[in-house]
Amino acid sequence: MKSLISALAIAAALGTAAFAETIATGDLGLIIERANGSVLLVDQSERASLARIEGLGDLSHASMVYSSDERYAYVFGRDGGLTKVDIVERKIANRVVQAGNSIGGAISDDGKLVAVSNYEPGGVRIFDADTLELVADIPTDSKTIGLVDAPGRRFVFTMWDTGETWIADLSGSEMDITKILDMGENPYDALITGNGRTYITGLFGEDGLTALDLWDDDPKPIRVLPNYGRGQEEMPVYKMPHLEGWALTGSEFVLPAVGHHEVLWIDANTLEETARTKTYSQPVFAMARPDGRQVWVNFAHPMNDTIQVIDTVSKEIIHEFKPGPAVLHMEFTPRGHEIWLSVRDENKVKVYDTHTFELLREIEADSPSGIFFTARAHRTGL
Amino acid sequence: MKSLISALAIAAALGTAAFAETIATGDLGLIIERANGSVLLVDQSERASLARIEGLGDLSHASMVYSSDERYAYVFGRDGGLTKVDIVERKIANRVVQAGNSIGGAISDDGKLVAVSNYEPGGVRIFDADTLELVADIPTDSKTIGLVDAPGRRFVFTMWDTGETWIADLSGSEMDITKILDMGENPYDALITGNGRTYITGLFGEDGLTALDLWDDDPKPIRVLPNYGRGQEEMPVYKMPHLEGWALTGSEFVLPAVGHHEVLWIDANTLEETARTKTYSQPVFAMARPDGRQVWVNFAHPMNDTIQVIDTVSKEIIHEFKPGPAVLHMEFTPRGHEIWLSVRDENKVKVYDTHTFELLREIEADSPSGIFFTARAHRTGL
Repeated sequence: MKSLISALAIAAALGTAAFAETIATGDLGLIIERANGSVLLVDQSERASLARIEGLGDLSHASMVYSSDERYAYVFGRDGGLTKVDIVERKIANRVVQAGNSIGGAISDDGKLVAVSNYEPGGVRIFDADTLELVADIPTDSKTIGLVDAPGRRFVFTMWDTGETWIADLSGSEMDITKILDMGENPYDALITGNGRTYITGLFGEDGLTALDLWDDDPKPIRVLPNYGRGQEEMPVYKMPHLEGWALTGSEFVLPAVGHHEVLWIDANTLEETARTKTYSQPVFAMARPDGRQVWVNFAHPMNDTIQVIDTVSKEIIHEFKPGPAVLHMEFTPRGHEIWLSVRDENKVKVYDTHTFELLREIEADSPSGIFFTARAHRTGL
Repeated sequence: MKSLISALAIAAALGTAAFAETIATGDLGLIIERANGSVLLVDQSERASLARIEGLGDLSHASMVYSSDERYAYVFGRDGGLTKVDIVERKIANRVVQAGNSIGGAISDDGKLVAVSNYEPGGVRIFDADTLELVADIPTDSKTIGLVDAPGRRFVFTMWDTGETWIADLSGSEMDITKILDMGENPYDALITGNGRTYITGLFGEDGLTALDLWDDDPKPIRVLPNYGRGQEEMPVYKMPHLEGWALTGSEFVLPAVGHHEVLWIDANTLEETARTKTYSQPVFAMARPDGRQVWVNFAHPMNDTIQVIDTVSKEIIHEFKPGPAVLHMEFTPRGHEIWLSVRDENKVKVYDTHTFELLREIEADSPSGIFFTARAHRTGL
């Protein structure tokens, strides 16, 4: 009997061992449960939820990045919370409230630095990825948006109030900041292309977009797509589209139009418009399947129960369906054979085959929004 | 005392727990030790070797793919051995000798099927990724080369003797095979682009290359680069270049010339030559850093102690150095900040910073050749 008790004590002491031994982390993911401040750990291959981890604060509009070993997620909460989640031990490893109101983050290419973009007080703070100790504080006197990582231990971010983009280079012993002026009026979001070369900001205060070539030694603002935006006779804009949703499909980008029921096709080299496809309603995300053959589109409230799938060769809609009320987010498996959709108001995540469009599984989740698979660890600018 | 013994017994029974609980698999990798039939488990973030796993048979020219959870490697040995290595438990999970002489393999996009390409007897065999049980046997009456995976549970491969390319589609209940004739004389290798759309074969028997557009419902051979090859006044060819080494750098491919001391730049859309860069000797691999800003080139015997780095904007060589005798293989970290080089005849793997070119670490390895990081699990056609 004594040995049995010892056995149980040891099993308890080992703690995570009982499930850790079946966990390799390459096909796991976390889903934001926005109402509860929790995240759901999921297994992509098993199409299953594994555990719920609670206590992450206000997760409305939350996002996350992963450590390069795919063990830790850094979750950026709207309340300024930066939470490090250990997906092997299935618990919070560390948490700091680093500002009053934050708006996303990024992780350096070497995995050593985590940066957070803040509205209040405006600026960027950079933390040690191991300890969450503050490494650098960059006040900007502005709400700060569009924070991304770029190769060479750099972070790029943009100021809503002043229209400046800053490049913080932490590759040397001293941080070096390059400031680019005149990006445009009230930049509201930005993206970096998958290769880390082109940074593009969307503007709320004027039409058009502004690009930077980060391979240039002295990057200058490049105005592109001058008609992109709300325009003169503007339609009501329910939601400015997420630029992170830009889809690269071989030699073209797909971009949700602002206020109009269409997506735009843009030549990736010239950044000029090449075509438009009419859609069901105002698109929010237009996301390319990893092979670029399909683009999946979701829509703004109140039409957010519907998904359309566009073929990138014909540029025509090849499939339309209604997963359920409030489809907020989509995440493809890394090689694109399946897609996971958050259906917030049904409290479900739904998994589909992207070739047959068959519904493969429904998973219970509490007001799910963002879905983030660990494969993101290996990519730039997500 | 009895409880202590029980404790040890339980710890032994749990087996993997002692290290499984601390192993996330996202930044691990295996290095082929070709002389010994062993693989070395390495940690990319720690720049360290963790364990040696032995008993894999003849590993000359071996390659591998990873399961989607980044737990298992499927190692394809020259002797027809297919070995499933468990990198969490650090041991061989299963091994079959499936043919007399094999030449590489692939894993389906859903991670369920592993395919092996064989010379003797010629053909492709497809195995259940869990059990290594035979799922399909596809004799081809030819040495079979250039096996890759393509989206939609497909494998593509080419026949040396007959010049045919076959597409095996395993997405339905019955396997469907499409045969494309007239790919050219003696195809010796092939590649598929990262998006899974374009399959390109190199020809030993004639100049030029042959491409297939796999997005076409009825793919036809497309002859490209008619001057690519050994040509009329041929130089001695020490080694036909590896097509897997083709580097995509934004809108261009970089391709090692055959027999000449140069790399070729190819427009990715038109597949026409745009430029050449002179190199130190006959290139074997020309590999793009993941962001596409640099191409690293190694060379054929006896000049294989040298590496050159080419800037993809200027197309000029910006760095040259001698890591040591017989630099056989290069592997970038997934986000490109570091590179690992196998220096076979010095029995070392060397790790360099790709921005400063600084040597960061040397790791002992026994006649190292291929280096394979687990991040490959999430990519097509590797």
